[in-house]
Amino acid sequence: MPVNLAAPDPASLHPVAGVSLGIASAGIKKPGRRDITLIELAAGSKVAGVFTQNRFCAAPVTVCRQHLESGSIRALVINTGNANAGTGEEGIRRARQTCAAVAKMFGIAAEQVLPFSTGVILEPLPVDKILPALPAAKTDLSASHWSEAAHAIMTTDIVAKAASVQTRIGGRTVTVTGIAKGSGMIHPNMATMLGYVATDAAVSQAVLSQMVKEVADVSFNCVTVDGDTSTNDSFILIATGQAGNAEIADAASADCAALKAALSEVSIKLAQAMARDGEGATKFMTVQIERGRDHAECKQIAYAIARSPLVKTAFFASDPNLGRILAAIGYAGVMDLDVNAIQVYLGEVLVAEKGGRAASYTEAQGAAVMKEAEITIRVILNRGDANATVWTCDFSYDYVKINAEYRT
Amino acid sequence: MPVNLAAPDPASLHPVAGVSLGIASAGIKKPGRRDITLIELAAGSKVAGVFTQNRFCAAPVTVCRQHLESGSIRALVINTGNANAGTGEEGIRRARQTCAAVAKMFGIAAEQVLPFSTGVILEPLPVDKILPALPAAKTDLSASHWSEAAHAIMTTDIVAKAASVQTRIGGRTVTVTGIAKGSGMIHPNMATMLGYVATDAAVSQAVLSQMVKEVADVSFNCVTVDGDTSTNDSFILIATGQAGNAEIADAASADCAALKAALSEVSIKLAQAMARDGEGATKFMTVQIERGRDHAECKQIAYAIARSPLVKTAFFASDPNLGRILAAIGYAGVMDLDVNAIQVYLGEVLVAEKGGRAASYTEAQGAAVMKEAEITIRVILNRGDANATVWTCDFSYDYVKINAEYRT
Repeated sequence: MPVNLAAPDPASLHPVAGVSLGIASAGIKKPGRRDITLIELAAGSKVAGVFTQNRFCAAPVTVCRQHLESGSIRALVINTGNANAGTGEEGIRRARQTCAAVAKMFGIAAEQVLPFSTGVILEPLPVDKILPALPAAKTDLSASHWSEAAHAIMTTDIVAKAASVQTRIGGRTVTVTGIAKGSGMIHPNMATMLGYVATDAAVSQAVLSQMVKEVADVSFNCVTVDGDTSTNDSFILIATGQAGNAEIADAASADCAALKAALSEVSIKLAQAMARDGEGATKFMTVQIERGRDHAECKQIAYAIARSPLVKTAFFASDPNLGRILAAIGYAGVMDLDVNAIQVYLGEVLVAEKGGRAASYTEAQGAAVMKEAEITIRVILNRGDANATVWTCDFSYDYVKINAEYRT
Repeated sequence: MPVNLAAPDPASLHPVAGVSLGIASAGIKKPGRRDITLIELAAGSKVAGVFTQNRFCAAPVTVCRQHLESGSIRALVINTGNANAGTGEEGIRRARQTCAAVAKMFGIAAEQVLPFSTGVILEPLPVDKILPALPAAKTDLSASHWSEAAHAIMTTDIVAKAASVQTRIGGRTVTVTGIAKGSGMIHPNMATMLGYVATDAAVSQAVLSQMVKEVADVSFNCVTVDGDTSTNDSFILIATGQAGNAEIADAASADCAALKAALSEVSIKLAQAMARDGEGATKFMTVQIERGRDHAECKQIAYAIARSPLVKTAFFASDPNLGRILAAIGYAGVMDLDVNAIQVYLGEVLVAEKGGRAASYTEAQGAAVMKEAEITIRVILNRGDANATVWTCDFSYDYVKINAEYRT
């Protein structure tokens, strides 16, 4: 069951001027399933994205990268039920065919459309089902369909993921609203993390392109469920420029910082929702590494802990098995680490220092923290000023069940 | 249940001239459990070892490294039930105390004793129980106690692991016999991989020290269960020099190659036994990467597949879910990989090529291979002459059960 996660109230999701969303059913995997989402952007919108580093990247990822280079994106089309991954040249052709059909409906160029797919991989994309459903998605377009879109892009997610904030920038109210799907960097059968965050703020393409990486680094790149990386992972930032603020073109400006904070807030909520909805999750874990030499080594240690099956099964069992945390720190690959200088906290409890269990620590203290549904592991390296945070979930019987039975 | 693995027939384990083994019960964790193993080596024996790369290495590992530098090792002492890891300076002191007690019994220096511990970590080593049990272990010393020792060093292993071969080198019969414990590079609560392989061959210290790394690289370093690395992992090669062959001092000689082959054969059997006895294992998997640019990239891809929880749960379910294998290849971190050039075989069946499913592949073919208890995944990179092999097991409900309940 998802940990402290409920579907968002649709009324809490502010429309973003210049963004309309439409849903339709193509029956790709199941008849009647609302599996097509169309997002139309007003002329002048800026778009930037980051994508999976997987070498077996899906056809739509390849097409997205190409189309983003040409600029002036006006529409996004997302299907669930089929990932269009591991489909070779024919997969690229079909992704382009989908873009062309969307472009024709809107009277734009195919290069102005970004395609996204999530679902089973190694199966041909059923364009014969997708293309006929597009007009219904266009008819459904509405600025208030964020919640519907959050549901339509789900695959094995239990809870729909959406978040929205408003802030003041340059004397104007600026809105940021986003949706996402997935349970960490990956879900069963590579069913992909997708994230879409839109704002009506005016921002230059250069700043937006830089911002998408920075926002991803503090949100979607901080979450893991099982360490696997999907073929289709995509995160897209959209800025329609309709809020009336002076265009943010200076990455060092206060306006830029304010916008980045709002985009990060929404993206972090979405990213955390993925770990809370991780497969079989019973606990939400925050792994926080502090006072490291640089961010990279902090992240390396955070991921070693967050990915360790031994740590994750211990948290599932509510067992304060500290040795597994220490061992994960030790094998993270930071070879000059002085383990005697490290402190480890479970929640507020100091559990380890000087290379072993803290003298003040009692098993009862650890057991009390482990009963919580949300637990923070803090590791203080005491050798610098850098830090890193990773969110994850525990590892339960249901993880094995969900993944063993996914295709049956 | 272990996959095609039975405890070795004690009669199949040839004694190694110059090596005696004695067992005793110290009642470290459970009263009556035979938990102390003493190995005495004849004067003139050469010893070399490789140890965990974990920064939180256990006290006995630190002491072993120091004592191996001083040379002329004459005894090994191994306890189960307590890992003496995460125990700080006091742990080092207690490991040395154990060595001193063994040394006194044999009239040798403490630096001539190597200590090993495996079991629960973060608990003080109970020297008050270990020291009184040492005389009984000495009384029990016998050249024919290899099988007893294999049983005494087990922790959560289901099956004892031992292997033995004889070969001709320099006109003499040379024996190689070894024992090991563990289920891959790690077992519950860091309970460690330990391996001890002895030969009566005469070999120089320099050649033996090089050989221990080379043999580890083709055996114990090719196995993974869950990707975690223990604080205590140790692999020790012993050469007593009593076979009567001319001392092997040339690493390029035919005699050296023959000895290495025999040592590797025994070590590979022991390493494979760990994956066969992996926690909750129902399948033994061989991941074989061929025609890569170098060994490092082959190993990287092999481990990405062998460590993927998604791949391992699919094998548990006997589901030929090829997408998960392709995705693991894709995220292994070999960034210039041309996925369109790769072929993937499941057993003898070509399942993927040209970036997607092979045209000739049928689900029935994949399902037939997946029914086997031992399965080979072959990935042909087609970009060089290097290769690498990794052995692992699948990921079942029982893995979670064993690890969630370890301390309860």
